[in-house]
Amino acid sequence: MKFGTVKVNGESQVVLVEENRTNVLLLQAAAIQMGEVIPATLLECIAQGEFFLQNIKKIEQWVSKQENKSKFYADDFVWEAPIPRPAKNIFCVGKNYAKHAVEMGSEADIPEHIIVFSKAPTAVIGHEANIPRHEDITGELDYEGELAIVIGKKGKGIKQDEALNYVFGYTIVNDITARDLQVNHKQYLLGKSLDGSCPLGPVIVEKSAIKNPNQLDIETRVNGEIRQQSNTEQFIFPVEEIIAILSKGMTLEPGDIIATGTPAGVGKGFKPPKFLQKGDEISVKVKGIGTLTNTVH
Amino acid sequence: MKFGTVKVNGESQVVLVEENRTNVLLLQAAAIQMGEVIPATLLECIAQGEFFLQNIKKIEQWVSKQENKSKFYADDFVWEAPIPRPAKNIFCVGKNYAKHAVEMGSEADIPEHIIVFSKAPTAVIGHEANIPRHEDITGELDYEGELAIVIGKKGKGIKQDEALNYVFGYTIVNDITARDLQVNHKQYLLGKSLDGSCPLGPVIVEKSAIKNPNQLDIETRVNGEIRQQSNTEQFIFPVEEIIAILSKGMTLEPGDIIATGTPAGVGKGFKPPKFLQKGDEISVKVKGIGTLTNTVH
Repeated sequence: MKFGTVKVNGESQVVLVEENRTNVLLLQAAAIQMGEVIPATLLECIAQGEFFLQNIKKIEQWVSKQENKSKFYADDFVWEAPIPRPAKNIFCVGKNYAKHAVEMGSEADIPEHIIVFSKAPTAVIGHEANIPRHEDITGELDYEGELAIVIGKKGKGIKQDEALNYVFGYTIVNDITARDLQVNHKQYLLGKSLDGSCPLGPVIVEKSAIKNPNQLDIETRVNGEIRQQSNTEQFIFPVEEIIAILSKGMTLEPGDIIATGTPAGVGKGFKPPKFLQKGDEISVKVKGIGTLTNTVH
Repeated sequence: MKFGTVKVNGESQVVLVEENRTNVLLLQAAAIQMGEVIPATLLECIAQGEFFLQNIKKIEQWVSKQENKSKFYADDFVWEAPIPRPAKNIFCVGKNYAKHAVEMGSEADIPEHIIVFSKAPTAVIGHEANIPRHEDITGELDYEGELAIVIGKKGKGIKQDEALNYVFGYTIVNDITARDLQVNHKQYLLGKSLDGSCPLGPVIVEKSAIKNPNQLDIETRVNGEIRQQSNTEQFIFPVEEIIAILSKGMTLEPGDIIATGTPAGVGKGFKPPKFLQKGDEISVKVKGIGTLTNTVH
């Protein structure tokens, strides 16, 4: 199952995105007709855990039997991020693909211990939203296509072999980075948190649809040109290890988003560098999830 | 005016802490009797801005005229952090006192550009709460007493000479740090975000009570022994500059907390280092705000 958040007539709606359909199922509208209750945000839905997934199955079944089912679908909508406003910063793993670590410096940059920084939740934007160029602040805006984990269950001290039980699903992050700020300020937060620098989505795929998160093709294109092309099997720290390390002394919570790091091929890695310019269209595709597309404005 | 959040009979309450009183004024209880409305959390109160402060003045006046005013005060309560659950990570400025930068390395560590990292909101605990020792995770738990800014108004691209208009008030943070994790993981987030590693409070002092946030005595004691003693006039980046730099491309929001950095005298700076042990009591005192005390457990 693929979940999203969209705006219909200016209002945020939690939706189910079914295969081979361009319209989306408005879960609240259907639930109300059925006499069921679906929370107003996907973040709250995720916090309901298994109960939410069971409810969705009931709603899907019920809708399929309705004669006039089209009234529960929206054709005309604007994508928001599936979680438009996370309840904390987005966790981001740095240098989790060896080739990317090398392109950012040298072999010495391949991390022995996981590197974790964060992006402010104010940076989140949805699929097809514009990424501000911030030209007065940075001359080195860059892209980073990434698989992101969405946590489904509260946990601390999570063991690797139980880690996937704590996952709700997966989505895509474009970890837009101001390279000059990232370097100047040493700690990454400021260079990673400009408004609009966290495109997220378009959907969260429920984990049962992803056989192995550590074996997914990932590809980033800028104006159609392939820049990043890899597979998450190249992770230095796979999903289970990321969850185990982060939760060692820090409680993870439903709705937490963990971006898993980006493969080689970022703009900074080219000689000369290929930083983002106004009008550039970036698409990050992760197999089994979808394609996240945004334009620099 | 000093605001706090306390637990009375297991319930969180927003309170006013009046001078020379050991009990606290329960704002919601008084407001209900008056026919006024006070939001359930201090975070929501702060978001109301000037309207909230005007309401408080009315409530104070009304309570002072009541015959049986003691029923609006609680004597028996447990402190929570004034904002027990911030809506995003706590922003933290690193190495903002030159002497501390030097004790952590050398003169070369005095930053030219501001260093900003974050602590996960799950790390927040209140005054008098226990700080977990996390002995299975770190051998180098350390303290960092800091003044913290609480933002009162949404803003972006805030100019230095208008920065204080965006402040709601000030509080105290003890930026508890696992030094080994901080060093190993390079980016600070994991070493700064262990559960219970962000003691906050006891109160937020509304800004009009602080003449100049860049001229406040600050002192940290461990088991009564003075470890840190400085004044915020030693800031490399004063409060106005911190707000201007952070908001340059990133929107700041009401309730955002910005810890301003710690003076020299952290445990790691001693030879041999004086890391925290079970039973250690740490008190961080900032003039005009109060004293934040916590014990390592």
